Amino acid sequence: MRNLNEFTITDAVLDRVRQAPGARTRQISEALVRHLHAFTREVEPTQEEWGAGIDFLTRTGHKSDDKRQEFILLSDALGVSMLVDAINHRFPDGATETTVLGPFYMQAAPQLTLGSNISGKLEGKPLFVNGSVSTIDGAPVADATVDVWHADGEGFYDVQQIDQLGALAGRARFITGQDGRFHFWTVRPAAYPIPQDGPVGQMLDAQGRHPFRPAHVHFMIAAPGYETLITHVFADGDEYLDSDVVFGVKDSITSPYVEKPAGTAPDGTEMSNPYAWLHYNFRLKGK
Amino acid sequence: MRNLNEFTITDAVLDRVRQAPGARTRQISEALVRHLHAFTREVEPTQEEWGAGIDFLTRTGHKSDDKRQEFILLSDALGVSMLVDAINHRFPDGATETTVLGPFYMQAAPQLTLGSNISGKLEGKPLFVNGSVSTIDGAPVADATVDVWHADGEGFYDVQQIDQLGALAGRARFITGQDGRFHFWTVRPAAYPIPQDGPVGQMLDAQGRHPFRPAHVHFMIAAPGYETLITHVFADGDEYLDSDVVFGVKDSITSPYVEKPAGTAPDGTEMSNPYAWLHYNFRLKGK
Repeated sequence: MRNLNEFTITDAVLDRVRQAPGARTRQISEALVRHLHAFTREVEPTQEEWGAGIDFLTRTGHKSDDKRQEFILLSDALGVSMLVDAINHRFPDGATETTVLGPFYMQAAPQLTLGSNISGKLEGKPLFVNGSVSTIDGAPVADATVDVWHADGEGFYDVQQIDQLGALAGRARFITGQDGRFHFWTVRPAAYPIPQDGPVGQMLDAQGRHPFRPAHVHFMIAAPGYETLITHVFADGDEYLDSDVVFGVKDSITSPYVEKPAGTAPDGTEMSNPYAWLHYNFRLKGK
Repeated sequence: MRNLNEFTITDAVLDRVRQAPGARTRQISEALVRHLHAFTREVEPTQEEWGAGIDFLTRTGHKSDDKRQEFILLSDALGVSMLVDAINHRFPDGATETTVLGPFYMQAAPQLTLGSNISGKLEGKPLFVNGSVSTIDGAPVADATVDVWHADGEGFYDVQQIDQLGALAGRARFITGQDGRFHFWTVRPAAYPIPQDGPVGQMLDAQGRHPFRPAHVHFMIAAPGYETLITHVFADGDEYLDSDVVFGVKDSITSPYVEKPAGTAPDGTEMSNPYAWLHYNFRLKGK
């Protein structure tokens, strides 16, 4: 294997990666080499463009830390995350539809009691969220873990303004009651641009794309014996529903954030100001 | 563009990136989306495998800094660097053949006078290197910049042991004389494994591949009016010439590192111990 040229090198690399002892590693490695070489062969990058690609990936890595995941953002913005999601949820089965995890999920969210206000120092209009977790047949799922996270009324997550906030906010973990129900208070999230101060923002700019996502609340719902559900509930009527920068919107997970006047909220709270109300029933698929 | 599924999402993303105002950005973006989605569709990653991919890329970025470039190493180990090199040097033209830049080039190398010993605190057998830079027709190229860098007798570059060495070594920049010639002293480089303490090392391990490169000295030669030459001179007879982990070996840039007894070296230096001698004439392509 010397004197390789543009016509012989792909087979040479494939021969090498076929040495992989694991069948799955072999399959992924072979496919990666074939598609990566096909991309390179089609685009015919100059050495400078190759260098710009190396630099883009390096900066994407450097931008990622425990509060920011620029490679997930890149996967999202290129539609790869939704493609993987679609491949892994191929068969309609009556369960709630899925969408991307996104780059802002954090393991460290606090577990709170039902009814808590999770907004912390986030600013925005009050939002009451309630709903239920059930099986496909509608039987309540008790003790399900309902992980929620969302942006504030300006479209920023807590981790994007952690220095000002001083603590996580707009995220928590709840446990459903015996009736499978949950409820909590927070602030209404706004539509927002994905972070633009990194390589992915530069890519969108070069591609002439707007960076917005329609307003949504993230949900990750897990219960023993059920497949973990990763989804959002989007705000019905949002102007970006048809052009979500990460291609994640589905009608079945779009719901009205109903405007309510001051008065008694569904959980009995006396509201002296108007608020919004989001209600959604999630259905989990058994394993 | 809502309710996208695995059959419709690729076209939706392509429609979006076709908004790119620049023709080249549009071309690269479209090709990237098509090949990346084709890879994803073929491999059908689970959510866990997708997460492992995100983590691999993130760690590759984090491993890269001003002295280490793990994404170049990845490109090298997947044969992409040599493919880009081949695409950019398509037509045989009598100029010296090219190979990969590799991850160890540093702008910061010192410029030294011809005949200098660049080995610093690197250990290894003495090596005398001389040669010339000429046009394709053999006319000498004066004032050419000859950038050299190489590993030591144990196969380590200076930047991999900078704490022990205290300074860069085994790298320098020379200027050819009016006769187009250059010469310098250093230590003979050994074959070596590419760095294995990062994601690329883990990948090679999973792929059942050895991590070795045959012994070589890197050269980057630049002169006004000529295309910059990036190449190595490999050691003839090295056991890894046919299995270079980065697929970079060509016969025309393989040359004997001649074993010489103690005595008078070609530049008049009296050597009390045996040494090795590498001689190579480089030919540059006019712009």
